[in-house]
Amino acid sequence: MKFPKAHTLKEIAEIIGSEFVGDDVFPVFGMNEIHVVEEGDIVFVDHPKYYDKALQSKASVVLINKKVECPEGKALLISDDPFRDFNRLTRHFKPFQTAGASVSDTAEIGEGTIIQPNVFIGNHVKIGKNCLIHPNVTIYDNCIIGNNVTIHAGTVLGADAFYYKKRPEGFDKLLSGGRVVIEDHVDIGASCTIDRGVTGDTTIKEGSKLDNQIQVGHDTVIGKKCLIASHVGIAGCVVIEDEVTLWGQVGITSGATIGTKAVILAQSGVAKSLEGHTTYFGSPAEEAREKLKQMAHVKKIPEILEKLKKN
Amino acid sequence: MKFPKAHTLKEIAEIIGSEFVGDDVFPVFGMNEIHVVEEGDIVFVDHPKYYDKALQSKASVVLINKKVECPEGKALLISDDPFRDFNRLTRHFKPFQTAGASVSDTAEIGEGTIIQPNVFIGNHVKIGKNCLIHPNVTIYDNCIIGNNVTIHAGTVLGADAFYYKKRPEGFDKLLSGGRVVIEDHVDIGASCTIDRGVTGDTTIKEGSKLDNQIQVGHDTVIGKKCLIASHVGIAGCVVIEDEVTLWGQVGITSGATIGTKAVILAQSGVAKSLEGHTTYFGSPAEEAREKLKQMAHVKKIPEILEKLKKN
Amino acid sequence: MKFPKAHTLKEIAEIIGSEFVGDDVFPVFGMNEIHVVEEGDIVFVDHPKYYDKALQSKASVVLINKKVECPEGKALLISDDPFRDFNRLTRHFKPFQTAGASVSDTAEIGEGTIIQPNVFIGNHVKIGKNCLIHPNVTIYDNCIIGNNVTIHAGTVLGADAFYYKKRPEGFDKLLSGGRVVIEDHVDIGASCTIDRGVTGDTTIKEGSKLDNQIQVGHDTVIGKKCLIASHVGIAGCVVIEDEVTLWGQVGITSGATIGTKAVILAQSGVAKSLEGHTTYFGSPAEEAREKLKQMAHVKKIPEILEKLKKN
Repeated sequence: MKFPKAHTLKEIAEIIGSEFVGDDVFPVFGMNEIHVVEEGDIVFVDHPKYYDKALQSKASVVLINKKVECPEGKALLISDDPFRDFNRLTRHFKPFQTAGASVSDTAEIGEGTIIQPNVFIGNHVKIGKNCLIHPNVTIYDNCIIGNNVTIHAGTVLGADAFYYKKRPEGFDKLLSGGRVVIEDHVDIGASCTIDRGVTGDTTIKEGSKLDNQIQVGHDTVIGKKCLIASHVGIAGCVVIEDEVTLWGQVGITSGATIGTKAVILAQSGVAKSLEGHTTYFGSPAEEAREKLKQMAHVKKIPEILEKLKKN
Repeated sequence: MKFPKAHTLKEIAEIIGSEFVGDDVFPVFGMNEIHVVEEGDIVFVDHPKYYDKALQSKASVVLINKKVECPEGKALLISDDPFRDFNRLTRHFKPFQTAGASVSDTAEIGEGTIIQPNVFIGNHVKIGKNCLIHPNVTIYDNCIIGNNVTIHAGTVLGADAFYYKKRPEGFDKLLSGGRVVIEDHVDIGASCTIDRGVTGDTTIKEGSKLDNQIQVGHDTVIGKKCLIASHVGIAGCVVIEDEVTLWGQVGITSGATIGTKAVILAQSGVAKSLEGHTTYFGSPAEEAREKLKQMAHVKKIPEILEKLKKN
Repeated sequence: MKFPKAHTLKEIAEIIGSEFVGDDVFPVFGMNEIHVVEEGDIVFVDHPKYYDKALQSKASVVLINKKVECPEGKALLISDDPFRDFNRLTRHFKPFQTAGASVSDTAEIGEGTIIQPNVFIGNHVKIGKNCLIHPNVTIYDNCIIGNNVTIHAGTVLGADAFYYKKRPEGFDKLLSGGRVVIEDHVDIGASCTIDRGVTGDTTIKEGSKLDNQIQVGHDTVIGKKCLIASHVGIAGCVVIEDEVTLWGQVGITSGATIGTKAVILAQSGVAKSLEGHTTYFGSPAEEAREKLKQMAHVKKIPEILEKLKKN
């Protein structure tokens, strides 16, 4: 997420009460997660294993739990608990607001858009033109919806990321200050759940069509003209490129990238990134013909056992 | 769906601006999809591969993109884009109406039926006697519910079919003008989604019981006294015969028929029609004992490799 | 469930019109299912296969369909249909009440708790302090929620158990008079469904975190600090011990126990109880490395066939 206006490094450090390495007036424009972070943003890291990745990312400011050497042109915020302090910043810039009505006064609804009964639309939501939002849909604060979008009953846009840090006293939640962004001509079925980004966006691009009861995790990006069938579960930080087809009950693990025009057959489980222009099947998913061949091979085992008995 | 009154072939051709083959006053009573179409109805076909199937179906009128020979006793509507013109007819006979209240004035609710708070009931919905509709349920226009039906919270009846045609500029949606029909003594759990038929009905027959979070696609028919567990996903145009049991997270592909008293074990994936009176397991599903035997055989491979090393 | 006050055996027998074996004033405090029944409670049994289990359980009163010998210190209720009469008792002590408002007058809501729009809260629900209940959530009668609990939009707590007895004329439903109990610091995602106990409680213990679209069946107990990912389906009467992790789309069969700190990988299907401190995978689930080894072995079959051809 971007801050409402640029802040100085010193101002940010004061919000979280931390030391910093860098110029007092080093400008800070926002905060984000590592796989989508941009120049001007803060990223956080609290494990030495990921220090290099964070320091070499596009982030201009690294919120870190060790006073490491600061890369040229960047700044550091030094904290004993970067997770906690990243949450402090989210809370500071995106405080939770209760809504007094089913459609918030601060929401903007475009011309020709129909909002059916019992819909909840949170603060600062923007919905474009000629959309149809069916009953009992929930749209959390700050979500952005384009033109000609249909959302069926019971769907939830913008619930929190499922992202926790294990502490001795229990799970500590990474706060979600990001958004859900739905582009033009997207259809979303009934009872889907699309979580907001932690500080970035969960995005569904132009012309993609989702069936019912689909789960899309935080910060995931779904490309253009994708077709996604019922009960598909897509974890957080996934990238689905354009024109991908996912059939029913497919699951995709966190952080994976699915290449353009890939087709993933029903009930497959994707445990790693997959190339485009290919059809996959199985749990874990492999190239479909190869997987089906393996299944056919299993049926030859009795024959193999028979032969070995004779030998 | 049936039209409110019979129309002549000429009237229908004027609505979509098409040529036709047949008598001006050839009567047309409705429209439907090929697997449930009845005499008097229009069916559409836009691929030569399916021409014969459509022309030989029970449909009396075939909306087609080639001037083929017209079968005896039937009529043709000739269109450069039958998909688009089928949508035009759906839009003409079942226009989308917004609802001004949570329970539409045109809905009929039977004696003894309890509607809990925050339920949405669309236009022309009929609900029988002694039903219990729990909070936050959404029932779209034209759905029909029998007597002694229970529907748990958050369930959605009548969302649109997930049915798109790929066009160069993006997905084109087949409009849904059909209904959901729930017969007597059916129980539906929480957060289920039962899509309407495209122009026909999605039907759940007498005495069937559905658990939570079940997806039932457009035009699917579920027989009497079926038992369906949580997270089952049934695609469109499926026929589940009577007294079938589907355990948790089972998936069934579009167009399949599951025979009477079949039992499908949890997480199975059904990729084709299955005979009744049999238990199935696996993804893809096979007869259960056979499948379990195959799994046991896999465990013998290390022993086989050992033997081969010795030989 | 416990009755509002203690009743005598004779009073209970009169409610259901049954014979009894035991003292007229034998005290009865409540009713429950066999795996959680306590001293003072009634349990029911209607199949000789389970007679011994019921008679030797902690239950003080056994509602049974045969005049067996009564164990020392216990009492019997003799019924030609214990299932029907157990339902009669549930109906007597927990009658269904309609709610006239979205938040029942008899609900208690703690200080600092925020209830967002379109939430339904049933009769006698108790919600603790500093909870956040997002829009379109449904909480059925008698549910108990602790402090610092977050429940995301569209979630349903307390729908009926999916529990039917097959009778010649159709399925007969076991009525649900139990509760859902959510302890402190639990987070529940969007569009989850947590069913009430039949006469006992479905419990989620302190500090556990649930993602979206999760199903939890009746009378199931989820331990402390568990982490459960999206689309997981947990059947009824399951015991998940503390600090268990269930990844996406896992399914767990009725009655299973999952030991402390077990990890079950995505899409696994659990068909029996599993030891703790172990990672599992597959459908049916086995120890994960063993299962992955089996999958690797399958890929060696072509090589085996090749060798056998040479021999």
